[in-house]
Amino acid sequence: MTLAFVTGNPGKADEARSILGDVERVELDYTEVQSDSLEEIARRGVEECYEELEKPCFVDDSGLFVNCFSGFPGPYSSYVYSTLGNEGLLQLMEDEEERDAEFRCVVAYHTGDRVETYVGVAEGRITREPRGEGGFGYDPVFRHSSGETFAEMTSEQKNEVSHRRKAFEQLAEAVG
Amino acid sequence: MTLAFVTGNPGKADEARSILGDVERVELDYTEVQSDSLEEIARRGVEECYEELEKPCFVDDSGLFVNCFSGFPGPYSSYVYSTLGNEGLLQLMEDEEERDAEFRCVVAYHTGDRVETYVGVAEGRITREPRGEGGFGYDPVFRHSSGETFAEMTSEQKNEVSHRRKAFEQLAEAVG
Repeated sequence: MTLAFVTGNPGKADEARSILGDVERVELDYTEVQSDSLEEIARRGVEECYEELEKPCFVDDSGLFVNCFSGFPGPYSSYVYSTLGNEGLLQLMEDEEERDAEFRCVVAYHTGDRVETYVGVAEGRITREPRGEGGFGYDPVFRHSSGETFAEMTSEQKNEVSHRRKAFEQLAEAVG
Repeated sequence: MTLAFVTGNPGKADEARSILGDVERVELDYTEVQSDSLEEIARRGVEECYEELEKPCFVDDSGLFVNCFSGFPGPYSSYVYSTLGNEGLLQLMEDEEERDAEFRCVVAYHTGDRVETYVGVAEGRITREPRGEGGFGYDPVFRHSSGETFAEMTSEQKNEVSHRRKAFEQLAEAVG
């Protein structure tokens, strides 16, 4: 079965294909609701997509969750990155010793009958300063538990351990 | 005509009544979408409310927009307050000289035919430390252009100059 992946990002669709096999990328502007929960955002997004497409489909949503800030920036990671940037995040954490953080990705899959969600997590810590030239967004300040920041890894290395891969793998298992 | 104000906050409904006269408060959980624009959030919210209520109604949405951060926390003010608090905002602005900020309130009114939006603004600056015991949220760190923080004002004084009052006044003028 070809699954429809609703995303504006061709790179994500390639990543999904490498794990799920046949994936059709669909561009569709769906609503992202305000919520503390990525699961709810993705779930409601895929419900809207299914209503429009009338076939099994999935969406993903990701965020960086910083422990000492109760998850901030979380579901609003992209807005916070575009307004405060990594500089702002580091400034916020200047005197902070507790630097644990995780990237989370939720995939919400509409089977035609119901919505299933899968959560992938990459654990790490927020660095004291940006490191590495690769990746995008918070990658230079997120040191993965394996020791390097996402921006110091090659994209192959990052894809190997990424939160998104972990969520895609669970979807792959579920659709068999 | 009695207008329906969809809000979970009885205090806001009282404030609306003092300006608009007869206002019926309705509790209804409507969707707030993710958007940089309060107007869009309020507009889509009231469209959903109108579909449900089938009568003229309005909603409001507010945020604190800090100039040097391209508006952050803006539409996500409440999430940011609950995760970072005023302490976080002050930490972010520790070395910042440009401290201009504004509270904005958008009222979206569904007339039955169309949606009209009204924007009220209260201009001020972010203080170096919290001042005053009144108000809530960012009030202690927002020094209104009249010289005091919202938390140093009585609630009557604050209501007199608030962004919400300005938006309600425009609605009152529009509905005659």
